[in-house]
Amino acid sequence: MKDFEQRLGQCRDQIDQIDKQLLELLVKRRQVTKRVGELKSQVGMPIFAPEREQQLLDSLKQRADAKAINPQLVEDVFRRIMRDSYKSQDEQGYRCVNPDINKVVVIGGGGQLGSVFVDLFTRTGYPVHIIEKHQWQQAKAIVMDADLVIVAVPINITDEIIKQLSYLPEQCVLADITSIKEQPLAAMLAVHKGPVLGLHPMFGPGVTGFIKQTIIICHGRMADKYQWLLQQFQVWGANNYQVEAAEHDNAMAMVQVMRHFSTACYGYHLMHEQADLEKLLAMSSPIYRLELAMVGRLFAQDPQLYADIIFSNTDNVAMMERFIDRFRDMLVDVKANDKQGFIEKFNQVANWFGDDAQAFLEESSIMLDKAKERE
Amino acid sequence: MKDFEQRLGQCRDQIDQIDKQLLELLVKRRQVTKRVGELKSQVGMPIFAPEREQQLLDSLKQRADAKAINPQLVEDVFRRIMRDSYKSQDEQGYRCVNPDINKVVVIGGGGQLGSVFVDLFTRTGYPVHIIEKHQWQQAKAIVMDADLVIVAVPINITDEIIKQLSYLPEQCVLADITSIKEQPLAAMLAVHKGPVLGLHPMFGPGVTGFIKQTIIICHGRMADKYQWLLQQFQVWGANNYQVEAAEHDNAMAMVQVMRHFSTACYGYHLMHEQADLEKLLAMSSPIYRLELAMVGRLFAQDPQLYADIIFSNTDNVAMMERFIDRFRDMLVDVKANDKQGFIEKFNQVANWFGDDAQAFLEESSIMLDKAKERE
Repeated sequence: MKDFEQRLGQCRDQIDQIDKQLLELLVKRRQVTKRVGELKSQVGMPIFAPEREQQLLDSLKQRADAKAINPQLVEDVFRRIMRDSYKSQDEQGYRCVNPDINKVVVIGGGGQLGSVFVDLFTRTGYPVHIIEKHQWQQAKAIVMDADLVIVAVPINITDEIIKQLSYLPEQCVLADITSIKEQPLAAMLAVHKGPVLGLHPMFGPGVTGFIKQTIIICHGRMADKYQWLLQQFQVWGANNYQVEAAEHDNAMAMVQVMRHFSTACYGYHLMHEQADLEKLLAMSSPIYRLELAMVGRLFAQDPQLYADIIFSNTDNVAMMERFIDRFRDMLVDVKANDKQGFIEKFNQVANWFGDDAQAFLEESSIMLDKAKERE
Repeated sequence: MKDFEQRLGQCRDQIDQIDKQLLELLVKRRQVTKRVGELKSQVGMPIFAPEREQQLLDSLKQRADAKAINPQLVEDVFRRIMRDSYKSQDEQGYRCVNPDINKVVVIGGGGQLGSVFVDLFTRTGYPVHIIEKHQWQQAKAIVMDADLVIVAVPINITDEIIKQLSYLPEQCVLADITSIKEQPLAAMLAVHKGPVLGLHPMFGPGVTGFIKQTIIICHGRMADKYQWLLQQFQVWGANNYQVEAAEHDNAMAMVQVMRHFSTACYGYHLMHEQADLEKLLAMSSPIYRLELAMVGRLFAQDPQLYADIIFSNTDNVAMMERFIDRFRDMLVDVKANDKQGFIEKFNQVANWFGDDAQAFLEESSIMLDKAKERE
């Protein structure tokens, strides 16, 4: 036993030594990627270089294979290191695509999502002005010489704010970042004669930058006048996705509204069933734990925000009633103990998902493995 | 520009050099942890040492802080490396807690989950016999001298199989691994006079071992006779969680059945709404992408399995009808445009979740960050 402890102790000392060296290398790597960020920012090269990333990972995984070490481990570790490296490069600032811009105005720029835009515009060297509620009296004077106005106010007052912007200079680009697009886009086109576009950033206020984030673009008017803005998003690392406003709203009703609402209902249900959360968690596999977390996280956030999203589109009520009908439809099978009926419906959906189902299974399995690490 | 490219090239060469060294260290570390696995397996020490893990992480993060590198990066990278190290240690086999055991029989041991048990018992040096469907005629002869019989057959035939096991030797431990516990436990107690316990492994067939996995234990009879089995689970790295069968079934109805069923309904709904999956994905933020993946993954799996789980407990129908009522209840607010009503319900649930909501938000945010890496 003493021999065992001695040998285990030796191994652990070796591990500690290796870990120290690993840490040193991580520090060294960050210093170099910081320099890369500085260089790129000087010439305005995008931080996120997908080909370079893929090439790096491929060559590392190939070498991993040869060395009899799990290539998935190598991929996971280096992806995590690269994420940090993008962050360090982000801190170096960005090339300004349009240095002729005199003034960017973000209405509601003090808000959670608005301030992400303010921060990026500022760090890129654009002169940025914010209009908050109490400054609304001076709005007209502030936007008088603006080249870009972004409306980043809560969804329930977006329309009201847009309608007042009739005094914008004609060449000014007008945009909003509301999570619905048809209505605000129509309002902007009605109030302003110049270039107009609708934006929907597909990320929450928690992000530090746009790298690898999707931003939805709905065209309004005079696309050539706002091209610089789309290019700027790309320099920031964003993935611009252009789509019709109606199609966007339809998709959001399906995913965003429906998921938020049914998640809220599930929380409401758990409460009424007097579920014992602590015990549920103790008995949860990683997948249930993650699902519970996805429910619980909703209730740490602003109810007004969710209410605004859910109440923003009255078409959603009909769609959610159709969901209830389908839920009841499937429950009939359970009630009648008709397993075959249930399985038939299940197979229909499996066919409809096709190969995507398998891809989703693999994608989520990697996520669940990661969840396991944290316990 | 030439100067820029040269300097960028130099930086990238440096990064490549650092990455090569990182890879070398990972290989070296795996060699040492493999040796640790061999040592531990010789003396039967558990592979997962929570204190050692925490101590290692703490000291690394502290050093990270001092070196001005993100401690979260360091934690994530080393957690991932440790997960791999557990796997390499798992491959070295385990100490056999009870070498007096003559025979372990796993009925349905060729199945997905059954084979995980067979694999671990075998690698730990227990003599393991499998009974599959076609060998059922010889079952009586096979179990005659068994010390442990584990029923690992599909849930819909568990009861039928258990009822036939009246011929087990009196000292033999009888256990099942069904995802419901009350009914099979009662059936086992009725058919067998000796030690009985119910098990519910909280993981799917994809796992390679028990490390960090939860296994639920429902006591049946003569706990002292099956203590060695619980200890063996611990040596395998499992987290044993003891609970009453009724309470377990209640919790599972809440989490497992309800979530599986409503996820199936959501897929059925998406199909009927003729959703364009590709576009939905393109427009998805990481959180929606993950939610869609959680829906899609269900349909890559065996419908019979899900049908069996959902149809196993008729109490669930009443509970799911209560869910519909609550869903409708909240939808009334939306229909009536009663935002205040919705927000009040939301706040009730937020109060009920208490501090857990914030904890869930943080936990899932880390997961969502990781999802982002993979895009």
